[in-house]
Amino acid sequence: MVAEILSVGTELLLGNIVDTNAAFLSQELAALGVSVFRQTTVGDNRQRLFVALKNAFECANVVVISGGLGPTQDDITKEVAAEYFRRDMILHEESLNRIKIRFASRGRELPTNTNRNAIIPEDSLVLPNDNGSAPGVVIEQDEKILILLPGPPNEMIPMFTNYVRPFLQQKSGRVFVSRTLKIIGIGESQVEAMLIDLISAQTNPTIAPYAKIWDCHVRLTASAQSQAEVEKLIAPLATEIHKRLDPHIYSDNDATLPEIVVELLHKQNHTLAVAESCTGGLIMSELVSVAGCSSVFLEGLCTYSNEAKIARLGVPATLIEEHGAVSAEVAAAMAEGVAKTAGATIGISTTGIAGPDGGTADKPVGLVYVGLYVNGETETVKFNITGSRNEVRIRAANLALDMLRRQL
Amino acid sequence: MVAEILSVGTELLLGNIVDTNAAFLSQELAALGVSVFRQTTVGDNRQRLFVALKNAFECANVVVISGGLGPTQDDITKEVAAEYFRRDMILHEESLNRIKIRFASRGRELPTNTNRNAIIPEDSLVLPNDNGSAPGVVIEQDEKILILLPGPPNEMIPMFTNYVRPFLQQKSGRVFVSRTLKIIGIGESQVEAMLIDLISAQTNPTIAPYAKIWDCHVRLTASAQSQAEVEKLIAPLATEIHKRLDPHIYSDNDATLPEIVVELLHKQNHTLAVAESCTGGLIMSELVSVAGCSSVFLEGLCTYSNEAKIARLGVPATLIEEHGAVSAEVAAAMAEGVAKTAGATIGISTTGIAGPDGGTADKPVGLVYVGLYVNGETETVKFNITGSRNEVRIRAANLALDMLRRQL
Repeated sequence: MVAEILSVGTELLLGNIVDTNAAFLSQELAALGVSVFRQTTVGDNRQRLFVALKNAFECANVVVISGGLGPTQDDITKEVAAEYFRRDMILHEESLNRIKIRFASRGRELPTNTNRNAIIPEDSLVLPNDNGSAPGVVIEQDEKILILLPGPPNEMIPMFTNYVRPFLQQKSGRVFVSRTLKIIGIGESQVEAMLIDLISAQTNPTIAPYAKIWDCHVRLTASAQSQAEVEKLIAPLATEIHKRLDPHIYSDNDATLPEIVVELLHKQNHTLAVAESCTGGLIMSELVSVAGCSSVFLEGLCTYSNEAKIARLGVPATLIEEHGAVSAEVAAAMAEGVAKTAGATIGISTTGIAGPDGGTADKPVGLVYVGLYVNGETETVKFNITGSRNEVRIRAANLALDMLRRQL
Repeated sequence: MVAEILSVGTELLLGNIVDTNAAFLSQELAALGVSVFRQTTVGDNRQRLFVALKNAFECANVVVISGGLGPTQDDITKEVAAEYFRRDMILHEESLNRIKIRFASRGRELPTNTNRNAIIPEDSLVLPNDNGSAPGVVIEQDEKILILLPGPPNEMIPMFTNYVRPFLQQKSGRVFVSRTLKIIGIGESQVEAMLIDLISAQTNPTIAPYAKIWDCHVRLTASAQSQAEVEKLIAPLATEIHKRLDPHIYSDNDATLPEIVVELLHKQNHTLAVAESCTGGLIMSELVSVAGCSSVFLEGLCTYSNEAKIARLGVPATLIEEHGAVSAEVAAAMAEGVAKTAGATIGISTTGIAGPDGGTADKPVGLVYVGLYVNGETETVKFNITGSRNEVRIRAANLALDMLRRQL
């Protein structure tokens, strides 16, 4: 199957929002074995959308449109689709009832234009919207498949995942499965070098490495007649990659690094306290992003000033004078200090120079020490991190979390 | 002028990267009075790019392409442009010298394919690349303007700003200026309602409101023959909007909320300490994102547990028992406690229920108290915030920073 992705919305053409839907849909379609040959964005304009749809079906047999499904006069996607396939628009009672129940359950009044949300081209497959009012629509005709999805990503993504993905899998008669291995501590080029023979020989599964801001993902995608067969194709390759890249692989499902750290702390009955200098709140913020972190994360301190390091954490003033605030010694004292004063079994600390100013020949911008105190033992690691002030901070925060993960 | 934006890159069609260039270029072109009628993305494929370019010039007189200017065989944009305009490719000596100097100054060896970077369609206007090797190219022919820019945003954005913007301004014979007013504390629909007569009557300047995650922007764009004239058009409108929306406008230049707070603290010789519960490090992280914050930001504590609130901040245990950790009383005690224990003149605190669990009928998810202690006086504000766990946290952190801004 060959696909075109159409994004509809004048706000996209004005640059008011970045189109993340096109990237999401492209990645998902690629993982389903559907080749995307073009992405096009047009405004809320009937004639231009019609032309774009016509052009798209000249090269593609699947067209996915996101946006323009709402209830206002600007929302024209369903009508243009009906016009293209010469179908009438009808009221879909089931969708109308869903919307009514949705509003009632929230104690909100039904907007006057609600009916428009439930009016769809006849003989379509309707995709329920579990996170909004506008249903999705699939039209199949003349060997063409047109899929209409809402624009807001929080509605579009679950609708694609829950309804469109299984629909397309069924069409292709094959099951596609992707698994992403997430890697920290080595870069994309090093990952590629360590897997080059596997990448060169790839057929099914395929192997695709992606560089991210502070980590690197390797996505394995395989297809077969059944879920069990496809798992059988992926498993040995995943095992081989684990053998080569462990312990740099921190996740081989969707879990994030802070989620994994919180889970490990839970399992091992540890409690954690954090003392941040250059990362300034990023580590604790990542931990607190995990719902339920409160049972293992006791407290975090951003001891940006030397006074705070001394008063809050008990770092000796002489240590700072002797080695400077950015030093392995101070990182160690911060980690130990925060654990002991917080009554936690583990303390983790960062101190470094995030830039853009403040670097010297001895201690350049990007120099970061991470301290880790676990049950009486303290270790420190020195990192030299590249990037802007905020990139240095984000990378340092995640390297610190990863150091804790490796220890656990 | 009417424009189409073409993005070139197979990695875009695979969804490996999100196309932020299209949004940037659309916004910039809109601000220059150039109307964008379509954005299209194609892969690194000669024939498809040629067709896309041909289609684009059927509706547009300006086409801006980003991507595919590099030195590898995949990089085809310049050659397709030369083919479209039937021009030869020539070596541009000046660009070659720039690249040589660039590599020499970094002590790096010249890649073998460097020449390809400096080969361009003849009779083009060459745009220097101040952040990379591939120069930009402008071709004017038959009342058409084709602009080729590199794909990496850190090369494309400065090239557009420094060379393309003045070029297009000169073409239009007019100067375009945009000013953005940033608003917090009231939503987009309320902003629109308060400015509805101005929005309805807009001509030059234009007025465009945009909703963001935790704030709202109003962009004023005007054009005239000279910078002075255009400033004269914008100034009275900006003053009128200030009169209606102050004190909700926190910025009318590019300054961010934490930058403004840090600057105000500086000016008024204040020092700040932060105690966060539900926002868990986000406020301090925003403050530390501002280079030079260390002279006013003394320390931040993420006192997630009750024990930490009691031990670190001196919040009375009885207060927590009586009112609960999420209460105005505890927020006030946290703000006062963190200021006094840190020796700061100002203390700011948050305590709330970020969700998704933990809400009750009395204290629902999204309930957040912010405490502010300034020189012996403490006030608290209660917010009811909607959104996911992380949206509640981000909104709460910025509402807290804004409360401090208003106080200063």
